[in-house]
Amino acid sequence: MADHLVVFTPSGKRGRFAEGTPVLEAARQLGVDLDSVCGGRGICGRCQVEIGEGTFSKHGIESGARHVTAWNAVEARYAAKRGALANGRRLGCQARVTGDLVVDVPPDSQVHRQVVRKRAEAHPIEIDPVVRLAFVEVAQPDMHDPASDFRRLQAALAAQWGVEGVTASLPVLATLQATLHAGEWSVTAALRGREIVALWPGLRERAHGMAVDVGSTTIAAHLTDLITGEVVASAGLMNPQIRFGEDLMSRVSYVMMNPGGERELTSSVREALDRLVGDVVAEAGIDRADVLEMTVVGNPIMHHLLLGLNPVELGGAPFALTIDGAYEVPARDLGIVIAPGAYVYALPCIAGHVGADTAGVVLSEGPYLKDELTLLVDVGTNAEIVLGNRQRLLACSSPTGPAFEGAQISCGQRAAPGAIERVRIDRQTLEPRYKVIGCDLWSNEPGFEEATASTGVTGICGSGIIEIVAEMWLSGIITTDGVIDGGLAERSPRIEATGRTFSYLVREGEPRLSISQNDVRAIQLAKAALYAGIRLLMDRYGVDKVERITLAGAFGSHIDVRYAMVLGLIPDCDLSRVASAGNAAGTGARIALLNLRSRAEIEKTVLGIEKIETALEPAFQEHFVNAMAIPNKVEPFPELAKVVEFPTPRESVAESGGRRRRRRDG
Amino acid sequence: MADHLVVFTPSGKRGRFAEGTPVLEAARQLGVDLDSVCGGRGICGRCQVEIGEGTFSKHGIESGARHVTAWNAVEARYAAKRGALANGRRLGCQARVTGDLVVDVPPDSQVHRQVVRKRAEAHPIEIDPVVRLAFVEVAQPDMHDPASDFRRLQAALAAQWGVEGVTASLPVLATLQATLHAGEWSVTAALRGREIVALWPGLRERAHGMAVDVGSTTIAAHLTDLITGEVVASAGLMNPQIRFGEDLMSRVSYVMMNPGGERELTSSVREALDRLVGDVVAEAGIDRADVLEMTVVGNPIMHHLLLGLNPVELGGAPFALTIDGAYEVPARDLGIVIAPGAYVYALPCIAGHVGADTAGVVLSEGPYLKDELTLLVDVGTNAEIVLGNRQRLLACSSPTGPAFEGAQISCGQRAAPGAIERVRIDRQTLEPRYKVIGCDLWSNEPGFEEATASTGVTGICGSGIIEIVAEMWLSGIITTDGVIDGGLAERSPRIEATGRTFSYLVREGEPRLSISQNDVRAIQLAKAALYAGIRLLMDRYGVDKVERITLAGAFGSHIDVRYAMVLGLIPDCDLSRVASAGNAAGTGARIALLNLRSRAEIEKTVLGIEKIETALEPAFQEHFVNAMAIPNKVEPFPELAKVVEFPTPRESVAESGGRRRRRRDG
Repeated sequence: MADHLVVFTPSGKRGRFAEGTPVLEAARQLGVDLDSVCGGRGICGRCQVEIGEGTFSKHGIESGARHVTAWNAVEARYAAKRGALANGRRLGCQARVTGDLVVDVPPDSQVHRQVVRKRAEAHPIEIDPVVRLAFVEVAQPDMHDPASDFRRLQAALAAQWGVEGVTASLPVLATLQATLHAGEWSVTAALRGREIVALWPGLRERAHGMAVDVGSTTIAAHLTDLITGEVVASAGLMNPQIRFGEDLMSRVSYVMMNPGGERELTSSVREALDRLVGDVVAEAGIDRADVLEMTVVGNPIMHHLLLGLNPVELGGAPFALTIDGAYEVPARDLGIVIAPGAYVYALPCIAGHVGADTAGVVLSEGPYLKDELTLLVDVGTNAEIVLGNRQRLLACSSPTGPAFEGAQISCGQRAAPGAIERVRIDRQTLEPRYKVIGCDLWSNEPGFEEATASTGVTGICGSGIIEIVAEMWLSGIITTDGVIDGGLAERSPRIEATGRTFSYLVREGEPRLSISQNDVRAIQLAKAALYAGIRLLMDRYGVDKVERITLAGAFGSHIDVRYAMVLGLIPDCDLSRVASAGNAAGTGARIALLNLRSRAEIEKTVLGIEKIETALEPAFQEHFVNAMAIPNKVEPFPELAKVVEFPTPRESVAESGGRRRRRRDG
Repeated sequence: MADHLVVFTPSGKRGRFAEGTPVLEAARQLGVDLDSVCGGRGICGRCQVEIGEGTFSKHGIESGARHVTAWNAVEARYAAKRGALANGRRLGCQARVTGDLVVDVPPDSQVHRQVVRKRAEAHPIEIDPVVRLAFVEVAQPDMHDPASDFRRLQAALAAQWGVEGVTASLPVLATLQATLHAGEWSVTAALRGREIVALWPGLRERAHGMAVDVGSTTIAAHLTDLITGEVVASAGLMNPQIRFGEDLMSRVSYVMMNPGGERELTSSVREALDRLVGDVVAEAGIDRADVLEMTVVGNPIMHHLLLGLNPVELGGAPFALTIDGAYEVPARDLGIVIAPGAYVYALPCIAGHVGADTAGVVLSEGPYLKDELTLLVDVGTNAEIVLGNRQRLLACSSPTGPAFEGAQISCGQRAAPGAIERVRIDRQTLEPRYKVIGCDLWSNEPGFEEATASTGVTGICGSGIIEIVAEMWLSGIITTDGVIDGGLAERSPRIEATGRTFSYLVREGEPRLSISQNDVRAIQLAKAALYAGIRLLMDRYGVDKVERITLAGAFGSHIDVRYAMVLGLIPDCDLSRVASAGNAAGTGARIALLNLRSRAEIEKTVLGIEKIETALEPAFQEHFVNAMAIPNKVEPFPELAKVVEFPTPRESVAESGGRRRRRRDG
């Protein structure tokens, strides 16, 4: 019988096949990435291909529709039921080779398709399914052969899909006989490696998973189509553990004070995840049982509480984690109702203060894939810092405290409508203008008061505080040491004496919003802690400069990176290479959901990260003291200086007894 | 440095070791079976050895206590704390080689010791631990190395025991930090392969498991010492599912009639197992968490219900099992509270009617290890029958019905005090004598009435019915066809006309106990079904004779095998090779608990068993009809004839219309 040359594009894989070989079969033999759920029965339509027409001199082939068998009854039935195939496409399982061919596999027929991300510097997500669907026809039970239904299903999966020795948990097995009957001995199995995590009667073509970022304050969930990689529904909840304490340490204290309290905290976070499942499946119009896998990131304390591990050891030195490696556990063991055999995969923790959320950021940004020396900063109550590239990665956390979130600031507030988020100060008049969340107008533009009447102007959020302190320094209101210069009270009524120190009035009215000397000090302490941590990693790496800075998390999304650099939160860098990555931790969870190989990748990467404990580093204190200055006592910021006009260097001014008072307080 | 020859007995393993090598280390290097839990720290005392004294010409060695280092401080501390070592024994981890040695490892220092069984034909149980104990010293947490507690435990198990990549479930991990603290960084891990199923602070030397036989009527549990193999506590419970139906089929009907009823049945059997755990650990004075493994046998319906699998398909043809292979599942998933990571191992089912209980019988009796052709019969409401040897094994079940248990018999009752269990009939006078459960006297001996006054004589149990029908035939009261000979009414007033048939009066009084023609018919039907099943297997194997018959289960324990053969329940065989094995199914569960290799062995054996579905065999009917005769219409019983005097063959007598009546009833 004649042999024909078949070349698949875009892979370029080629081989000779006997007359009559189905195109899908040829693809499988060559290892070409061509999808199929129904196993070649012409019902799922996932193996669609395009037959090249004409002379392909590159391949030395004449190809054309005449070189495959004609459109057949199975394809006609498929088209009648599911709509005509685009562009003269054929079902790869029906079209058989009758001559030389160039066969193009379009992206939507590939299992390992790529999901494009918005930011150019973020590498695309490739799909490498953790769970795949396999339609099988199972032999009917027979009195002459007492093999169980499961044994016959195993045999069918081995014969029809080449998967030997399939296993299943009891909740899946409990659905087996009813599913076989409902599907008249045809079922679709969701295979996770060799384990069946769900079964449906007949053909099933869609698969979903959920990626979750368990934050201390909010829990965010993204229901994702496992085949296309697209997010089909998202939901968020306040972390219900807030009733046990606003911040993590107060929750750990709750556990210390209330033996068994860890179980309450565990229950509340698990219930929240289960509720989020309900929310996203309702939004997407699917069943809970259609969610086949869940991935989770979170800081070490949330990670441990979700898994039911007591976090008290994380509340004090030596901050020993119970586990640090990636962990997977049946969802049912966490009380989360999704597919009966589904698993939850928790990304690895890096250290006692650097959790699976940071691992998610690392996976999302992939610094270990690049030569470029990248600094990743995720700012929350603690800042997690990762520095490195293909050669080497370092990580630490630094206790910034909550000042960047508006806490400990006299007029600070959470980011919410009415909060000031942008500020500019006129270098001459020292008059401010600002924008609030929920209104696009500057405060000095007509209509601002009317537009903000409903929300009011209620406080200053984290990004607003960064900007105002930076602007105060740029306009000379505060010195490099962070002292509000009382001498300027003569120039502007906004510089007000308040006790022994001075403050800067941002807005009169109710409430009256001003930045006090203590507010400036709180920001200085926070940014000095962050910078000192970054600087320690740079020292350890042996560099004075980083090539890219990526800010992760909600804080990173809102601040203007230029002001962060003016304040000296982050080191000097070409501003075009400083950006926010949004919820990179959550993106990391989504990558781990879609790409099996990424799990081994992040597990291996995390093991290789050098962990620095800032508290043990003698240099931390010196870096911290230097970083109290704005932007820094010793570091030049040459890149920043190209785009921002620094204030004229001046002598320090006295803080009018502020230091003495501080000392008395301590 | 000098090398010394060390020979271990009884293994005969030998090697040369450098001066100063600990005897335990030498044993490990040679693969000698010498136990240790503490890993050579001289605290567990499990590596005790005896040093041979004198000249061992067989080995060419002069051995003696002078060829090991002297008794040391560690041994002195051990002896002071735990008592002196017997017979000049030494701790193998402390005594170091200083000359040639013959070292005897006594049985109690061997991991793979043998557990001797009572019956000579039963092979001994060798211990091959499913779970073993490993004491480790774990590195303390260190701020310079953020490795989690679990990672450091993994490292300790790898370094100190050579077990790499240990895993643990969340309930075990949840105990980790508290256990490390309580044990001051020394803990004992219970390892099941590479998985930790329990952790204790400090040194732990005892390990327990539980073997359970889940019968339709009773559930029996044996708490077993996993190190010595001994049963340390036993407990039984009525199967609480009895409230849903006395026999299995009525429970299946309950599920068919009450959707969701399978969950009630599952809960009730799981709760019963959990209650049995409470009973046996209380009796043994240990904690639930000390039970490290559970094994379970049961018929297919109980097996499926325990695992939460709906049994309705087992209620009708084709009797499809959901699963038939062995299955293991965390005990917590069945709601059974034992060690946090413990598993339940359910033996495999053989076919829709031949369950894990029969697999347990096969494992206990090991016919696949012998050349002798063995017949195993487990009689309950169904009889499970296994025939074969090393070459080949066959199995079937036969629907005997409950007559052998005293049901469907006019004066039948369960085996309980007051039930007649032994009967003899005088061949001349046709007068009976009998024994009842709870009294050692025959009914014609003085003091019988007084001795049984408290219980009364209330009925006839299964073994009594076998004997009385056999004795009726031996004394000529019934013919080979099973007809009670009314002609004998002239000879004995005990032959009474009852309607159109006759009956035999066993005892006057309250209640009046007699055997009716229908009773005889019920026994004939039951025994014919059993024999026809056995005969089918013999046909299939191609034999007319078996070499050994073993009766399993409670019924087998009570009947006199001679009478069983007289009635033709079982085929002819040398009576010295017919015996009861007691609860062989439960013993099979205990073997699977103690010996890891036995699991693979029974799983492989079960796969190789040829399953015969009696309902599909054309020959069944013919065998059944022949077996309605006593002992059989066509089979000679030459072995039986050697020890039992058969009645004079006679012409059949008419049953006086009994057949017609029977036809009307149908």
